[in-house]
Amino acid sequence: MAHPDFTLSAGPVTVTARTLAGLGSPILYHYDPEFLATFRRTQGKVGQMFQTDNDIILMQGEAIVGLEGALRSLITPGMHVLNLVQGVFGKGTGYWIADFGAVLHEIEVGYDDAVSPAQVEEYLDAHPEIQMVCLVASETPSGTVTDVAAIGPMCRDRGILTYIDTVSGVLGMPWKTDEWGLDLCVAGAQKCLGGPPGVALISVSQKAWDVMYANPAAPRDSYLSLIDWKEKWLGEGRFPYTPSVSDMNGLEAALDQALEEGIDAVVARHEAAAAVTRAGARAMGLELWAKSEEIASACVTSIRLPDDIDNAVVRDHAREVYGVMLSHGQGAGNLVRLSHMGPTAGGLHSVVGLAALGRTLADLGMSVDIGAGLEAALALLSTQRR
Amino acid sequence: MAHPDFTLSAGPVTVTARTLAGLGSPILYHYDPEFLATFRRTQGKVGQMFQTDNDIILMQGEAIVGLEGALRSLITPGMHVLNLVQGVFGKGTGYWIADFGAVLHEIEVGYDDAVSPAQVEEYLDAHPEIQMVCLVASETPSGTVTDVAAIGPMCRDRGILTYIDTVSGVLGMPWKTDEWGLDLCVAGAQKCLGGPPGVALISVSQKAWDVMYANPAAPRDSYLSLIDWKEKWLGEGRFPYTPSVSDMNGLEAALDQALEEGIDAVVARHEAAAAVTRAGARAMGLELWAKSEEIASACVTSIRLPDDIDNAVVRDHAREVYGVMLSHGQGAGNLVRLSHMGPTAGGLHSVVGLAALGRTLADLGMSVDIGAGLEAALALLSTQRR
Amino acid sequence: MAHPDFTLSAGPVTVTARTLAGLGSPILYHYDPEFLATFRRTQGKVGQMFQTDNDIILMQGEAIVGLEGALRSLITPGMHVLNLVQGVFGKGTGYWIADFGAVLHEIEVGYDDAVSPAQVEEYLDAHPEIQMVCLVASETPSGTVTDVAAIGPMCRDRGILTYIDTVSGVLGMPWKTDEWGLDLCVAGAQKCLGGPPGVALISVSQKAWDVMYANPAAPRDSYLSLIDWKEKWLGEGRFPYTPSVSDMNGLEAALDQALEEGIDAVVARHEAAAAVTRAGARAMGLELWAKSEEIASACVTSIRLPDDIDNAVVRDHAREVYGVMLSHGQGAGNLVRLSHMGPTAGGLHSVVGLAALGRTLADLGMSVDIGAGLEAALALLSTQRR
Amino acid sequence: MAHPDFTLSAGPVTVTARTLAGLGSPILYHYDPEFLATFRRTQGKVGQMFQTDNDIILMQGEAIVGLEGALRSLITPGMHVLNLVQGVFGKGTGYWIADFGAVLHEIEVGYDDAVSPAQVEEYLDAHPEIQMVCLVASETPSGTVTDVAAIGPMCRDRGILTYIDTVSGVLGMPWKTDEWGLDLCVAGAQKCLGGPPGVALISVSQKAWDVMYANPAAPRDSYLSLIDWKEKWLGEGRFPYTPSVSDMNGLEAALDQALEEGIDAVVARHEAAAAVTRAGARAMGLELWAKSEEIASACVTSIRLPDDIDNAVVRDHAREVYGVMLSHGQGAGNLVRLSHMGPTAGGLHSVVGLAALGRTLADLGMSVDIGAGLEAALALLSTQRR
Repeated sequence: MAHPDFTLSAGPVTVTARTLAGLGSPILYHYDPEFLATFRRTQGKVGQMFQTDNDIILMQGEAIVGLEGALRSLITPGMHVLNLVQGVFGKGTGYWIADFGAVLHEIEVGYDDAVSPAQVEEYLDAHPEIQMVCLVASETPSGTVTDVAAIGPMCRDRGILTYIDTVSGVLGMPWKTDEWGLDLCVAGAQKCLGGPPGVALISVSQKAWDVMYANPAAPRDSYLSLIDWKEKWLGEGRFPYTPSVSDMNGLEAALDQALEEGIDAVVARHEAAAAVTRAGARAMGLELWAKSEEIASACVTSIRLPDDIDNAVVRDHAREVYGVMLSHGQGAGNLVRLSHMGPTAGGLHSVVGLAALGRTLADLGMSVDIGAGLEAALALLSTQRR
Repeated sequence: MAHPDFTLSAGPVTVTARTLAGLGSPILYHYDPEFLATFRRTQGKVGQMFQTDNDIILMQGEAIVGLEGALRSLITPGMHVLNLVQGVFGKGTGYWIADFGAVLHEIEVGYDDAVSPAQVEEYLDAHPEIQMVCLVASETPSGTVTDVAAIGPMCRDRGILTYIDTVSGVLGMPWKTDEWGLDLCVAGAQKCLGGPPGVALISVSQKAWDVMYANPAAPRDSYLSLIDWKEKWLGEGRFPYTPSVSDMNGLEAALDQALEEGIDAVVARHEAAAAVTRAGARAMGLELWAKSEEIASACVTSIRLPDDIDNAVVRDHAREVYGVMLSHGQGAGNLVRLSHMGPTAGGLHSVVGLAALGRTLADLGMSVDIGAGLEAALALLSTQRR
Repeated sequence: MAHPDFTLSAGPVTVTARTLAGLGSPILYHYDPEFLATFRRTQGKVGQMFQTDNDIILMQGEAIVGLEGALRSLITPGMHVLNLVQGVFGKGTGYWIADFGAVLHEIEVGYDDAVSPAQVEEYLDAHPEIQMVCLVASETPSGTVTDVAAIGPMCRDRGILTYIDTVSGVLGMPWKTDEWGLDLCVAGAQKCLGGPPGVALISVSQKAWDVMYANPAAPRDSYLSLIDWKEKWLGEGRFPYTPSVSDMNGLEAALDQALEEGIDAVVARHEAAAAVTRAGARAMGLELWAKSEEIASACVTSIRLPDDIDNAVVRDHAREVYGVMLSHGQGAGNLVRLSHMGPTAGGLHSVVGLAALGRTLADLGMSVDIGAGLEAALALLSTQRR
Repeated sequence: MAHPDFTLSAGPVTVTARTLAGLGSPILYHYDPEFLATFRRTQGKVGQMFQTDNDIILMQGEAIVGLEGALRSLITPGMHVLNLVQGVFGKGTGYWIADFGAVLHEIEVGYDDAVSPAQVEEYLDAHPEIQMVCLVASETPSGTVTDVAAIGPMCRDRGILTYIDTVSGVLGMPWKTDEWGLDLCVAGAQKCLGGPPGVALISVSQKAWDVMYANPAAPRDSYLSLIDWKEKWLGEGRFPYTPSVSDMNGLEAALDQALEEGIDAVVARHEAAAAVTRAGARAMGLELWAKSEEIASACVTSIRLPDDIDNAVVRDHAREVYGVMLSHGQGAGNLVRLSHMGPTAGGLHSVVGLAALGRTLADLGMSVDIGAGLEAALALLSTQRR
């Protein structure tokens, strides 16, 4: 089977030729002065993306290495932790929290819904013992978002630590790490940034460092250790292990493009693409997965499928017959996802996704008004771009 | 400071244009059928490189993620482990072994020497309680090797598990995982293979899996877990986390080139390059770090420096004045390393390294017979290549 | 202005990542044995594409260097030449023929029509003095084709030389150089092949060589000389001038992909894409430029525009507002072209082109049934791909 | 046979990864606004390289297409032209001049010598009928240069037109088109610039345009026509034929690097590399081809071989046994060329070339003091770089 014509998946996403050129540029020794400069510049650019002056750690590995390393570093045995669950990643965070020895508190809602700031506020009022709040800003598997802009400052004001999984959040929503007082954020490069899939982007506040240093269970001399990076790299200029020179080159190229376009413009582009996709899907007669548009993610649009149509079959059919790689639900529910992340957020990419999905569903026997859907998407696009 | 003209470092190493093209090729979704096929093919090719039918695990991250994950998986609390120490990586393995809860036994020699099979045999005879032997096949920081071909079968015949750090060993020396009965081997792609720096290549025998599964301390639901890969990926075809599509493309390209050249030919090329480099260095009046040629690595040639010349200064001077990136000792001793790994193992690359080092040492006031050294290297090269 | 999201232009066309990797691969000396082998292999693959055993000449420059060089080589002063005119390139050929000293005969039809084999037969019957027939197999600017399969053998059987501009013809229609007895064919790499824009691909029969050698006006010691290539390169292995190593690498990569897919499959893919595009355009209420589907090209679909809509405005609007680069008429008439060549021939690329064009025309005030058009295109695509 | 380890040939030369990335970047339509901007920017940068405000024409094809096109445009039948001959390219220019209908005057010296400004002055004094002087600034096949800085102004002051083949001259020597009053200069991208091999870079003064426009024999409506470019592209913004988008991208990348380094710095780097190479060759006991260092080119160093050693054998041996692609004499004499152009001008590249050549000559039975030669080269390099 040949390469797909279009990859509109939930990440890793299609990246630009310039980012690919970064990934394919010559590999230098990691202590070459040129690479040391590249690594430091790239850290700074990640900080700009996060809108923070906090320390930036770039761990080598998929974003989850950062999520695990950071959580292990923060979770002090016996700590009271409130975890917000509205999707599969939030659910998984809860298992880790308990496993790492904390007292787990959870607010859980349906995977098509979002935990509200009011629910959090109420819980925190009733549980003054909470020391940390964990949340997933953007639940990629189901396409819903959490209101970090409200919950973040609420925790900061109460002196509660925040641990934020924003793997697909940053650039897919406004993100103000310092303004919102977020202590520890972990993002992936292979989502809205349109970067390579092998690096975890982490911002760490001084408060978070203090908790880690005081935590006897925090990993040290380990691949999962954030403290190693703080002490060896930030402190002494020695890498705790060899970073991927290629990933750094690809990452910097992706960051350069985002910064040249402007952080706000990138976020707006994702929001516009999501609006076009939702408009098209609704006009096609499809049902959006998210309970309301307010909580629908700007990076993926999840479509609820009828029970008799298997989401994996939809994905495979669109790939095989129309050459478009979509993402199915991966356990979040009987849904299929039209992604609009990175370079595919904008323009006719939404039309491509809608056409592939609409025609696939028609092929599978569902009644879909493809023409109306594509017209609606194009009509909205026409107003956006001029 | 511009890019160096030549990167002759101890890894990450210069890679070929074909490998770079792999790294820079379009990024597919990790569940795209094309990528699933790529991942499985690449596993098979790593198995060919290791000369094994054992399971192959490709963990996302620098090789050390595989070393740590595998050791944590194998080390059962209270287990008796013999660790062979002849360099900084072996020394570090010992710290981990103790830290992870085993009873640590060690044979340690100077970092310019190698633990001999006879020493191991004697120790094992005297300590029947040993359940696992850990060794570093190739100590990259100092450029010495361990006799795995002798020690591996010795352990296998006694029913003792083997854990082998062969990060820079595979392709830099003959490697027969199955013939020698090696249970767990971890290699890096960014050394003799000339691949990307972000992936750990691991072979696991059934015996090693049995030990892990029986080990309550083995990581599960963790980035460090080999069991996750066994159950989810090898078992169910689901990735425990997103692998780096780019790294896999680069890795497969590097493996294709090695397999097309022939595994034995690649090893022979490294050995020939090392011989040329040693001949040149000796004729130049330099002192090899390794006590004997038998234990000198084929992937890096370490040169012992006089006390009054700082190895970091040598490295920086060669980079700045001659545009050649060498590696210094990184804690292993006052040495500098001429590397010949991957695409730079062979031909005039050794002459480039020798010229840069010789002229640098002369610039720093040392008496070096540069002409004699380069002539000797070229004379040997002349006999090899025709 | 940023890069367009989609290039659906009439050539140079979007090329695959594999072809780009070829173009970006290291530059060797043109007498490096590796490059000599590449050049010779590539010649052979061009011959396979042309389906010929004739000599293949690869001239460095846009296809027109081959068209001019070949025509100057063949046109012997006083020669009687019949030129078929159904578009701007055919018209231009006529100017050259006269300018180069031949007696020009022409059959000319409207640029939305095609000269028929019957017209040619009648003319040849009436003019036995004709020594050469010149035709353009595929008029890219207007999107019509000529029936080479009928006219070629007709000329061969009468002993009349044929000079064929097939710049965008080969791979966009069945092509049997030897079976049809075509003497001199010139193709471009940047059209249906999806290759680089800097090389002219030429097949030359022995009969054509005989004419050139007998022609005192044939260029020699000139960039335009085919005889130089025959004598120096094919005869002595010396290049008459330095070929572009990069273009050859890109060309071979493109040829490899076409040959792996299969020549017939590539042609069928172009025909299928054209059928989808035409079905969509008609259902949208647009008027095809070509008088009949039989003479409509499989590489570009030309749409006739109302007089009050300027084709250049359409092109610019689609590019600026929808990020799709289409081609306008370039002098052939008030038309716009949806191209489906190379990698963009197939799948949803036609839907992208139709969506951009349909919405653009709506934006410009034309009444267009976008939904019906896209539905019709998708419905046909659905039957093709399963 | 695999790729060579090092390409130190006389062009096409090794180019940087950044230039390769340019060549391999996505292909846009030639009328895409982005590409139009690229083309115009690149023209401007070529003008900076030439240090001129004259018109810049970028013809698609190897540099010789520019040489031929320009000469055909300038040579008016009956014109008196003085041609300076000191190598094979100058000799060839003379054949063209006569062939194109001019009255040919020549000053010819041995191919290891240079025509002096005094000889030119004397000839011009004696022949007031001369209307144009033609010269080759850098004879690549033999590695000698002509004193353009003296001859150019001498012609300008007498109102004589100048036609300069500077294919390997620009960036390999100081170049002041406007200051020296040079009317028509043709350079190649694949020499000292380290660019792609498929484009001719031409500067044209108003006086040269006037001559062309007045010349009835100047090519028009032809691939060789400069007037077409002037009228269509410079005048109307229409390309006379499709330029190679890939070559332009590669060319701009190469120009950017040269301009970032600084034109004077690039020239100085070539001169320094040539000095190192000559010092090494002499100390090795080899004989330089050029009669004096003053006329030795900074882009290639030609070494005179003994009669019993065939220069083609030397080239093939160095390539096969040492993996270094050198250039042989190509008809200029029994010489071999060590090139130092573009990215290989500088650093240890000269040592690589000298080592390969020295050891090759030793292998072929010649007495060579390799060690002394490499030491001398390194000693000079040591003084240059600090």
